[in-house]
Amino acid sequence: MSSDPLVIFTPSGKRGHFPVGTPILTAARQLGVDLDSVCGGRGICSKCQITPSYGEFSKHGVTVAQDALSEWNSVEQRYQDKRGLIDGRRLGCQAAVQGDVVIDVPPESQVHRQVVRKAASSRNIVMDPATHLYFVEVQEPDMHEPTGDLERLERALQDQWGIEHITADLTVLTRLQPVLRKGQWQVTVALHKSHKDTCHKVVEIWPGLTEDRIYGLAIDLGSTTIAAHLCDLRNGEVKASSGVMNPQIRFGEDLMSRVSYAMMNPGGDKEMTTAVRTAINGLTEAISTEAGIRPFQILETVFVCNPVMHHLLLGIDPVELGQAPFALTTSESLAMNARDLDLNVMNENAQVYILPCIAGHVGADAAAVALAEEPGKSEDLVLVVDVGTNAEILLGNKERVLACSSPTGPAFEGAQISSGQRAAPGAIERIEIDPVTKEPRFRVIGSDTWSDEDGFEHVIATTGISGICGSGIIEAVAEMRMAGLLDPSGLIGSAEKTGTERCIPEGRTHAYVIHDARADGGPLISVTQGDIRAIQLAKSALYAGARLLMDEMNVETVDRVVLAGAFGAHISNKHAMVLGMIPDAPLDKVTSAGNAAGTGARIALCNVGSRREIETTVGEITKVETAIEPRFQEHFINASAIPHATDPFPELSKIVTLPDVNFNTGGGDTDGEGGGRRRRRRRG
Amino acid sequence: MSSDPLVIFTPSGKRGHFPVGTPILTAARQLGVDLDSVCGGRGICSKCQITPSYGEFSKHGVTVAQDALSEWNSVEQRYQDKRGLIDGRRLGCQAAVQGDVVIDVPPESQVHRQVVRKAASSRNIVMDPATHLYFVEVQEPDMHEPTGDLERLERALQDQWGIEHITADLTVLTRLQPVLRKGQWQVTVALHKSHKDTCHKVVEIWPGLTEDRIYGLAIDLGSTTIAAHLCDLRNGEVKASSGVMNPQIRFGEDLMSRVSYAMMNPGGDKEMTTAVRTAINGLTEAISTEAGIRPFQILETVFVCNPVMHHLLLGIDPVELGQAPFALTTSESLAMNARDLDLNVMNENAQVYILPCIAGHVGADAAAVALAEEPGKSEDLVLVVDVGTNAEILLGNKERVLACSSPTGPAFEGAQISSGQRAAPGAIERIEIDPVTKEPRFRVIGSDTWSDEDGFEHVIATTGISGICGSGIIEAVAEMRMAGLLDPSGLIGSAEKTGTERCIPEGRTHAYVIHDARADGGPLISVTQGDIRAIQLAKSALYAGARLLMDEMNVETVDRVVLAGAFGAHISNKHAMVLGMIPDAPLDKVTSAGNAAGTGARIALCNVGSRREIETTVGEITKVETAIEPRFQEHFINASAIPHATDPFPELSKIVTLPDVNFNTGGGDTDGEGGGRRRRRRRG
Repeated sequence: MSSDPLVIFTPSGKRGHFPVGTPILTAARQLGVDLDSVCGGRGICSKCQITPSYGEFSKHGVTVAQDALSEWNSVEQRYQDKRGLIDGRRLGCQAAVQGDVVIDVPPESQVHRQVVRKAASSRNIVMDPATHLYFVEVQEPDMHEPTGDLERLERALQDQWGIEHITADLTVLTRLQPVLRKGQWQVTVALHKSHKDTCHKVVEIWPGLTEDRIYGLAIDLGSTTIAAHLCDLRNGEVKASSGVMNPQIRFGEDLMSRVSYAMMNPGGDKEMTTAVRTAINGLTEAISTEAGIRPFQILETVFVCNPVMHHLLLGIDPVELGQAPFALTTSESLAMNARDLDLNVMNENAQVYILPCIAGHVGADAAAVALAEEPGKSEDLVLVVDVGTNAEILLGNKERVLACSSPTGPAFEGAQISSGQRAAPGAIERIEIDPVTKEPRFRVIGSDTWSDEDGFEHVIATTGISGICGSGIIEAVAEMRMAGLLDPSGLIGSAEKTGTERCIPEGRTHAYVIHDARADGGPLISVTQGDIRAIQLAKSALYAGARLLMDEMNVETVDRVVLAGAFGAHISNKHAMVLGMIPDAPLDKVTSAGNAAGTGARIALCNVGSRREIETTVGEITKVETAIEPRFQEHFINASAIPHATDPFPELSKIVTLPDVNFNTGGGDTDGEGGGRRRRRRRG
Repeated sequence: MSSDPLVIFTPSGKRGHFPVGTPILTAARQLGVDLDSVCGGRGICSKCQITPSYGEFSKHGVTVAQDALSEWNSVEQRYQDKRGLIDGRRLGCQAAVQGDVVIDVPPESQVHRQVVRKAASSRNIVMDPATHLYFVEVQEPDMHEPTGDLERLERALQDQWGIEHITADLTVLTRLQPVLRKGQWQVTVALHKSHKDTCHKVVEIWPGLTEDRIYGLAIDLGSTTIAAHLCDLRNGEVKASSGVMNPQIRFGEDLMSRVSYAMMNPGGDKEMTTAVRTAINGLTEAISTEAGIRPFQILETVFVCNPVMHHLLLGIDPVELGQAPFALTTSESLAMNARDLDLNVMNENAQVYILPCIAGHVGADAAAVALAEEPGKSEDLVLVVDVGTNAEILLGNKERVLACSSPTGPAFEGAQISSGQRAAPGAIERIEIDPVTKEPRFRVIGSDTWSDEDGFEHVIATTGISGICGSGIIEAVAEMRMAGLLDPSGLIGSAEKTGTERCIPEGRTHAYVIHDARADGGPLISVTQGDIRAIQLAKSALYAGARLLMDEMNVETVDRVVLAGAFGAHISNKHAMVLGMIPDAPLDKVTSAGNAAGTGARIALCNVGSRREIETTVGEITKVETAIEPRFQEHFINASAIPHATDPFPELSKIVTLPDVNFNTGGGDTDGEGGGRRRRRRRG
């Protein structure tokens, strides 16, 4: 039909006929091919590199002659001399169509390139951040056509990039005139386009074509830790990941104690707000140093956090979140300037996006998990559990998604455990107990050598054996149950009943000794009856939350389980199920998703469209409030037994047979699990 | 057609049939009748008062029975007891239709009431400010429907007022929860709706139905003075008007000297920005005290100012405005938070609107004059001159409007004049010189008694006679010309040539003595040759600017002249024309518009639609740059003569015959007007 040469782009497969002389960049734009350019085709940014292919392409039905593109030109030569160009590459804005040609767009020349995530289960991120760089040539002012510099910048963006409306606040306006003149009317601007706004906001401006890259922070603001990823907003690359303790811990270990602090101390909420903002500023400084960038290159920040952290970050008194009906000030996503939150280490015009909250107890962190794990797109019924001081639980499939949160407390993080400690070198993270000899063997963080293997002494020479971390305590309790040292109600047996001297008396209860270094002046590392009780409380809360959602969904089982959270990545699925933390499921259907909340934050940072997506999703999620639901109490009590007082665990039974022991001496023990047994009796 | 009762509203004449039992407020809303209500019909705000009329109305074709409305009810009785209700008035939300009825809406019950302006020539303002109060009942939070308080407030505004989208920034979010609870889920919110935005912004919130009124400031930020009107945003009433000196004067008397200060002193622009913002804060405090309101009741501020003041207010270095091509940073209107300008005396959420600038030399003040005087809606060709340190000049009619500014300098304000002073008690403001005796008589500010009348001594007993103000010097110069003491070139004659001893020598030139109190230790008040020269420079600039616009419009005369500016209100039209400040026109076609820039600011404050209007108008105005136009120089030189070297003044000639004198002695005088005479010779 057309006698114009045919241009075929790979990998997209897009094709079209273009007149001889059409630059490849122009052809790409007209076809909607994803070919990058910051300078808009002026041959100075080199972002539009392409690789022409020559020869016969039967697949495409074309033969590409050696002269299918215009000759290598002086602009390309200058770039080659100055920066170097990979063999075979051309600049798309310089190479012009002369005949039929096949053009490959390498990944680094694609704007919307995919960032491949390590966790195979999760989706990749398509790069499409809210903030982009644009190089423009602005018309000089003319007395006879008196428009402002901003209006001429706007017109340049419209003519050269098709961008319709821009706004600029005072921080940009005060710098606009000198920067335009320094750049001799050529400038690079960073434009932020919110998905809620029709305007592009000028957030930064550089004279000429900038060498600076721009970055964003994805921050998971947790009750205990603040974790951040620093991402290159061009390609999504994580340049550094870092974390700090949340300094609000000094006002209270868990959320409710912080809310209490705010209620009991006038101005206490302000103190906590200042503390967390200061910590974020420190983290911004540290992560920039680590990545070797300057903090003002950070132009965007996305926050995910639970509702109490959300309010304290914003400077809102969280008192209403501490009492029914747990009313949020606002549940919708928020966008603002970083400086409004006193985040003044990053660029003064950095833009903040905070994901929406699902409910008064189910925050933006749960929304982020939903964004990362997409239960609402799942064909099968998936349970997503994000374990932290507070657990966020999602259950759903394409039909419907439910969410709740459950106050697990800090036991899973090694707190409130007699030998507990944070995950650090020297902490026991893996334990096995021989069911016959009842002897333990273990590994400490930092080494793959087990304690009964050669060289273990060498391994622990520097760190020692200092305690048990969160994943270690879960394995210890589950192994004790499997080895018959612990009965279903959670009672540790005596030396007499278990046949091992490692079960030592402690008051009227018993403890199991894992490691005794007291003779060498070291610690006694044991699991006490109190530790078991703390773990039982935590796991019951987690299980009861999941079970409540299953009731609501009217199901008895789930198809698969995703353990999210830093913690989820380290625990053994089998042990978690022996403990009864999660509902019964085939072990190969239990996977770990790492820090899904952090990943959700990163997705929202790198892809602005995902913000609209999660806002819609959150509106569709059904929230279940655990705090007032009578069945939650019932589930909680039944879940106290290990693995459970009433629910069968058929999948677990296929791989593990739990000893049928009972260490109840008929009196004295008034631990929480009693209720479970009583209820079972009542039901029987 | 309908058997439902007929309801007729006056003064609008709107009518419709409504079922028995329909509240009058509901009927008014459905017909689009302008009937106010803050509480939305709950019988608590009393804004919807109406007056029913009874009897036969042949004009409307109805008879209104005594029982045409429902009976006076307990809500009305309660309001009557508590606050009192004017006889015959009812509450529109309580009184319901029972039969055909005629309802009068009194002016104070109309939302869009007109504010009658004093100056008959100018249009009235229809009240429709950007900020309105709304009373709402918000649904209480419910754990089973977990939405945020803000989202429920939004829903209440939507259900009860039809308002679609709201936003609230952190300053409101931090107060939202306690205020909602204090008001027991009834609150009054102030919503700001920009004409550029689709969202309503919550700027203030009160528990219950507030007793507070809300106010706005219209500020005319001039080089010399900052003038403000404090307006009630409900009815447009000006509660107080006040002004302060612009403290930037210490950095330079006129605009160019301030630009120079910024260029010569690093950080000088910042100093000037701080100075002006501090002054505005002080003025806000003072005007609030004067009006007896609290400054946080001020929710809006509109600024008009010239481009240099505009940039310095915004914190932008004005250096580019001091040199060709006089590029503005931005010419479009601006909207921002008052706190972004450090204006922190008024409400922390007060919204600022700054009118658009027309060009680098023609600012938002000229735009405000265009808004107030509407040359673009004039059938005849009108010249609007706003005289200040810088004069803004507009020329146009329905077809086309031109604008320019001209650097008149401060002579018209009494500065740079030997006996000049600001307009204050004791200053000479009116002068007459007897053409025969050459004796002057005068009046001082604060009295109507002339100096040759009985009781004058008594009048000046406290103030004395201290100098000549701007309008006084114009009259003095014009009277000197009419009395033959001054020749067309601007030379003062000697005693010998003029025949009066009041013409005294001063160096190689002469001065005319108006009042000599030296014998009593008082001042010698005279008009020197230097004063004449300063006035000539100022009036030439003004005339040349007007003439340049007339050239551009291709006309030789204008139909009418409007003198704007505080100054314009005080000068005598005849004297201004004798001086040749303005082009020749019939005297009854020269009117004064008072502070038109300030009025424009007040219009933009009280009517948000006028903001869009002036933005459009400014885009259509043709800007003429005087600084680079060769003809401006030519006009300037010709305009130096009094009244003019070349232009005929036929209308002036009809009422005044100017003596044909010439005091040029053939040497020594090298005043600027020489050029004009030379040119005249050349043309002749």
